[in-house]
Amino acid sequence: METIKVAIVGATGATGTSIVNGLLASDSARYEITALIRPPSMQKPAVAELEKKGVRVVSADLTAPQEELVKLLTGIDVVISAIYIAELKSEMLLADAAKAAGVKRFIPCFFATVIPPKGVTALRDMKPADRLEQQKEDVLNHIKKIHLGYTVIDVGWWYQISVPRLPSGRIDYALTTTNSPIAGEGKVPSGLTDLRDVGKFVAKIIADPRTLNRMVFAYTKLWTQTEVRDLMDRLSGEKCTREYMSPKEIEDSIAECLSDPSKSILIHTLQYLNSWGVRGDNTPETAKYLGYLIANELYPELVSQLCPLEEYFEEVLDGKGVQPYGKLLG
Amino acid sequence: METIKVAIVGATGATGTSIVNGLLASDSARYEITALIRPPSMQKPAVAELEKKGVRVVSADLTAPQEELVKLLTGIDVVISAIYIAELKSEMLLADAAKAAGVKRFIPCFFATVIPPKGVTALRDMKPADRLEQQKEDVLNHIKKIHLGYTVIDVGWWYQISVPRLPSGRIDYALTTTNSPIAGEGKVPSGLTDLRDVGKFVAKIIADPRTLNRMVFAYTKLWTQTEVRDLMDRLSGEKCTREYMSPKEIEDSIAECLSDPSKSILIHTLQYLNSWGVRGDNTPETAKYLGYLIANELYPELVSQLCPLEEYFEEVLDGKGVQPYGKLLG
Repeated sequence: METIKVAIVGATGATGTSIVNGLLASDSARYEITALIRPPSMQKPAVAELEKKGVRVVSADLTAPQEELVKLLTGIDVVISAIYIAELKSEMLLADAAKAAGVKRFIPCFFATVIPPKGVTALRDMKPADRLEQQKEDVLNHIKKIHLGYTVIDVGWWYQISVPRLPSGRIDYALTTTNSPIAGEGKVPSGLTDLRDVGKFVAKIIADPRTLNRMVFAYTKLWTQTEVRDLMDRLSGEKCTREYMSPKEIEDSIAECLSDPSKSILIHTLQYLNSWGVRGDNTPETAKYLGYLIANELYPELVSQLCPLEEYFEEVLDGKGVQPYGKLLG
Repeated sequence: METIKVAIVGATGATGTSIVNGLLASDSARYEITALIRPPSMQKPAVAELEKKGVRVVSADLTAPQEELVKLLTGIDVVISAIYIAELKSEMLLADAAKAAGVKRFIPCFFATVIPPKGVTALRDMKPADRLEQQKEDVLNHIKKIHLGYTVIDVGWWYQISVPRLPSGRIDYALTTTNSPIAGEGKVPSGLTDLRDVGKFVAKIIADPRTLNRMVFAYTKLWTQTEVRDLMDRLSGEKCTREYMSPKEIEDSIAECLSDPSKSILIHTLQYLNSWGVRGDNTPETAKYLGYLIANELYPELVSQLCPLEEYFEEVLDGKGVQPYGKLLG
């Protein structure tokens, strides 16, 4: 089995944790993982956890002089960025250092739904861009300018942020405040994925020469918002809350948020909802149109290993759900 | 043979003329061509020429209300934009109308060298963008946002703007003022194409389902600037002028032009030179990295029909060269 040396930024975050677990459990390659940790975070318990799992942990300041980063990345095959979105600017510095160090493949921090490159969400690339110093599309374009090997991986919308509210309140513990209302009539399909399965996809994709310099859409199954709620009704025996928002209301709310800087988190939720819930961007059809490969077509053997939504909802009803963002964004 | 209905904007320009001729001579499909002509240009001799060739000519104002354009485009399979670069803004209106009319494939006005999407040239997408209202990358991103079928066709650098100067002055008639000095040591390969062959490529590409929603790089052969001059030396018996410009000088001149709005044409020449002459972007290797298909690999039968550079240079020496931009830009 091939040994692949991976460096990862954001290893203790929600996506990063899934990726580390996926790489360590992989049977596609033997992954040697180095976690690049910001100096002030080195003493956190999550970092000690990484070391216990067998991850090499090094202190790394992405804004340090390039030669320091290049030294850390020399000999690394793949760099994965699962960086906090507000720090995308450092991701460009990381890409420059990866190029200088001879890294073969750079995985920029996408790990979200399929979205056209421009004009749909601020996270991807939309004007006014003043909310974020740097956007995902900027990083990708920078990568292309410096001719660095890359793979974009989008994973659809997580099960963990797709849980509808039950009137009894018994699953409130697993809900996020970024929970979305039903867009329109809730009939637009969108690719959903268990956050815990993201790493399984990543472990396949970064060992695969077919995905070099390509975008890959890794999702488990298409669901409409209505189907999601019907499923929760069936499993819970309750009738879950159904809040509707018309496409026009979503559009108006986005416009309102754009003029009010205090609503910066809400705007991302609404723009995502518009993209996957109204426009229908988060589907294999749009993904293929935009040039993505589809992970389930590349790795049919993986499909049976992915958690079905039914199973995660049962876990939530059993009190075993998780609220991936923690209290700050939850 | 399949009949394909094409509407073309810019049919009387340098690229447009080559495309019309290529479509009319095609053996890949039977092309029915409609040229969309701006109302003030309807009486021009070049428009009468089009009609003589069998092209349907209609008056079209791209800034008119959308329903008028939709009416013109209804029933059209492929829309080709070979628009004047300063009018790219209208190209977005054309794309919107094409989407509404059910057009299957839209060919935005690229038809240039391979360039990474951002940060290399102002024509493609570079800040400061104030020189042009709209850039090629904006149009492509808009197309992707509205989910319109498309094909990007880049054709490399024309033979017609690659002619070096001879000391005798005998081929000055065929030179453009946008003629490029030798970048660095003139050893970077770049894909060159006879302007008259552009249409041959287009006729193949737009009839091909493999190129739908893809980018295609259509060039005849790779040449370094030194090889081009050596060829002219050999054919002419003279020693052609060799002006050199180092990468640093090119970079400094670009910076200088960016701060002087009167140098807007020069900046495009210099940015192109930096891209194909220094960075080496205009090659099949970079093209494939950026996601392009390569026309000569798709259509090997076409290769023997393409004019070699030797043949064009012989024509120039025989007094039969052309100066494609006319007096304004020439």
